[in-house]
Amino acid sequence: MTPEAFREHGHALVDWISDYIEQVGELPVTSTVPPGWVRGQLPAHPPTAPEPFTAVLDDLDRVVVPGLTQWQHPSFFAYFPANSTYPAILGELLSAGLGVNGMLWATSPACTELETLVVDWMAELLDLPDRFRSDGPGRGGGVIQGTASEATLCAILAARARAEMGTGAGGRGHGPLIAYATAQAHSAVEKGLRIAGLSRLHVVAHDDRYAMRPDALAAAIAEDRAAGRRPFFVCATAGTTSTTAFDPVDAIADVATAEGVWLHVDAAMSGVAALCPEHRWVNAGLERADSYCTNPPKWMGVTFDCDLFWVADRTPLLAALSILPEYLRTRVGDSGEVVDYRDWQIPLGRRFRALKLWFTLRLDGPDTTRAMIRDHVSWTQELAGWIEADERFDVVAPHPLNLVCCALRRGDDATEALIEAANATGEALFTRSVVTAPGGPPRTILRFCVGSRTTQRRHVEAGWRLLQSLAG
Amino acid sequence: MTPEAFREHGHALVDWISDYIEQVGELPVTSTVPPGWVRGQLPAHPPTAPEPFTAVLDDLDRVVVPGLTQWQHPSFFAYFPANSTYPAILGELLSAGLGVNGMLWATSPACTELETLVVDWMAELLDLPDRFRSDGPGRGGGVIQGTASEATLCAILAARARAEMGTGAGGRGHGPLIAYATAQAHSAVEKGLRIAGLSRLHVVAHDDRYAMRPDALAAAIAEDRAAGRRPFFVCATAGTTSTTAFDPVDAIADVATAEGVWLHVDAAMSGVAALCPEHRWVNAGLERADSYCTNPPKWMGVTFDCDLFWVADRTPLLAALSILPEYLRTRVGDSGEVVDYRDWQIPLGRRFRALKLWFTLRLDGPDTTRAMIRDHVSWTQELAGWIEADERFDVVAPHPLNLVCCALRRGDDATEALIEAANATGEALFTRSVVTAPGGPPRTILRFCVGSRTTQRRHVEAGWRLLQSLAG
Repeated sequence: MTPEAFREHGHALVDWISDYIEQVGELPVTSTVPPGWVRGQLPAHPPTAPEPFTAVLDDLDRVVVPGLTQWQHPSFFAYFPANSTYPAILGELLSAGLGVNGMLWATSPACTELETLVVDWMAELLDLPDRFRSDGPGRGGGVIQGTASEATLCAILAARARAEMGTGAGGRGHGPLIAYATAQAHSAVEKGLRIAGLSRLHVVAHDDRYAMRPDALAAAIAEDRAAGRRPFFVCATAGTTSTTAFDPVDAIADVATAEGVWLHVDAAMSGVAALCPEHRWVNAGLERADSYCTNPPKWMGVTFDCDLFWVADRTPLLAALSILPEYLRTRVGDSGEVVDYRDWQIPLGRRFRALKLWFTLRLDGPDTTRAMIRDHVSWTQELAGWIEADERFDVVAPHPLNLVCCALRRGDDATEALIEAANATGEALFTRSVVTAPGGPPRTILRFCVGSRTTQRRHVEAGWRLLQSLAG
Repeated sequence: MTPEAFREHGHALVDWISDYIEQVGELPVTSTVPPGWVRGQLPAHPPTAPEPFTAVLDDLDRVVVPGLTQWQHPSFFAYFPANSTYPAILGELLSAGLGVNGMLWATSPACTELETLVVDWMAELLDLPDRFRSDGPGRGGGVIQGTASEATLCAILAARARAEMGTGAGGRGHGPLIAYATAQAHSAVEKGLRIAGLSRLHVVAHDDRYAMRPDALAAAIAEDRAAGRRPFFVCATAGTTSTTAFDPVDAIADVATAEGVWLHVDAAMSGVAALCPEHRWVNAGLERADSYCTNPPKWMGVTFDCDLFWVADRTPLLAALSILPEYLRTRVGDSGEVVDYRDWQIPLGRRFRALKLWFTLRLDGPDTTRAMIRDHVSWTQELAGWIEADERFDVVAPHPLNLVCCALRRGDDATEALIEAANATGEALFTRSVVTAPGGPPRTILRFCVGSRTTQRRHVEAGWRLLQSLAG
């Protein structure tokens, strides 16, 4: 492709994207194509000669878009959101255009230093403890990971390294390492442990708000110590995936600190709420956490992937992940003057992901995100009131921010059927989960998450009316 | 940012990128900024209000570009390349614009099915064995990983799962698992093992071409079995990082197959050479490999990140990485009719990376890449001849494709000084490594890799003249 063609097609694609985003609300939220349809529409064999750009754009409209779940749709109430703002899209475009690999400081100083800066900016905007800042008083610092799953894995690996270094009470003894989380923690905890070859997860009881019981954590640790196991890692969640439950991080930190166990706080969805001073309660206890993560793609519109991961002490993280073959050695890296982010993550190579955060913060400004968060929280609280007023429904869990979980009183089958019927309309998209209150049976819930940048109050209202009309 | 502003700024940024790429050869290849300079040029605190796009573009020119190593530069002869073609940049832009998360088939069928299709297309273009195709005779299939490091880790995890499932001779016994690779294998092998909690890597001897000795592998396995260890994984490299050495995969497969050890072949740099029929020798032995990877960002220009990872049997990979919490269950996923790629990788979420491969294949066509590869190989062979003709230099290793490794006969200090002096000019960029021939001392080498899409013969020639002028 010539530079002239790139300009022409690039302009056309920018316009196509703008049209797509502005009109996405008119599309069905979910694709209705059956398995194999997309592939069946496309040639079985690869192209043998260049094709015109219009042929690709045609296939985009004809095959790709009908095969998408529209994550940018205003009535996307499923999972947690994955928002793409215009500035972030431009940041991702620039990252691809520059095409640098920031694996080492020396392989593009700007890629590393801009990342450190914007991650520190985010620590300031979220009012995180200074211990996490790269220019803070200690050995803390932040890095952009791909996803919260990778952040969780890195936290597990750093915790293991610390235990193996014998620092902290977690290093005591020689028994098998064991980790702690509730059944409400993200599946990334179990997956991360399994990847690390650490099969032992002690599932800690939660209360009727789906939040971890610190007394149960303390009892679990005592039981494991008595049995010769070595407690090394606890994952507290600030806003769980099923219900946005908040584990009591402060009380958990009392236990973790006393026991020398690494405390990771996963705030993938809800952490960004701390942009708003009135929501800074989500940060409770972080001043004693060892690591923390939150995801700007979810509620800040910084195009996926971009997970902010902070550690209070980088030493165990580097001990877990540093490997220095000769072909990666640089004089400045050897000097210790700079950060080489390859040692903070699973992969070696890395894109210039800081650009999309930098673009979003500078071009939209933090107030744009704050206004969106306030709207979403306000509409969600209104929605919870509507649900509570409908005697066919139960609100199943606390709804402190932007997710309401509800269920039909007629039982799980009715709730499952409602979700399927609502999604089949293509007008809105909801997802399910199953939660179990203490002493109760498992219960299927409908999750109604208000998190899309394009969502307005009328979409929330229409989503609720849809559910009411199908609730039977 | 309004849609109108996005169009305007998007067009401007597309033009900026085109100007950057077309003129990158006029910039110094490496940044000369000292540690802290980039950060020092930017505000210490985050913005409080939106800024104009021109302010960001100004900082791009003033701060970011001077802080980059120009990976798209025609005289970038360092590491391995990371090319961004115009179609791939547009594919990445589109991925950001659509903003979908392809973690499950159901969360965007097109994201999954287009990926399966283009990965099968690549298997066809590279003439890989049918066992790796998703529509092949068995349980094989491919997936796009972020990086070769992640592919290596996934291969290790799948190999462990197979050993734990007790299938293959690798499952015999109960001793500690042990892996095999030469000292020339990528550091991702050691890092992946460490992440997985598997500390045992038996470093297998290489020959004077830096290729694994199959007899040494067989002996190492026998020794470990006798000592009660459980051989489970061997990484053969088709084009090592230091010297593009090719381990003899066919002979290694004889050993691995007989021993029931998982054979992963890492062809991150060189595998793409198989686009050209005359280079298909790089695929030797793959019909008995359990997993394989190659990186289109390196020699195909498909903007980083995009690693193609194939397995001959997906069962152990899924056993290693599948976790199914209630909030991710879908009817179609439960039915087994579709692929959910979250189970093929470390993270949960995933971008629509297939688009950039699809755009590159359709808009540039495979012949464009083939022509580039042929040029690079031809110029590299010419370069090797020039180096051999200069009595101050040794060519240190075979140079079958696009990398020549050389050293000054005056010794390591002279070679190190030459690399530093050449890089300090900003006219070209080379990297170093250290290799040790059997029975010899470690030797510092200068790696001269011809891999940038923008490189022409005259750049290779100028790079060599630069080295000659500074060689003393």
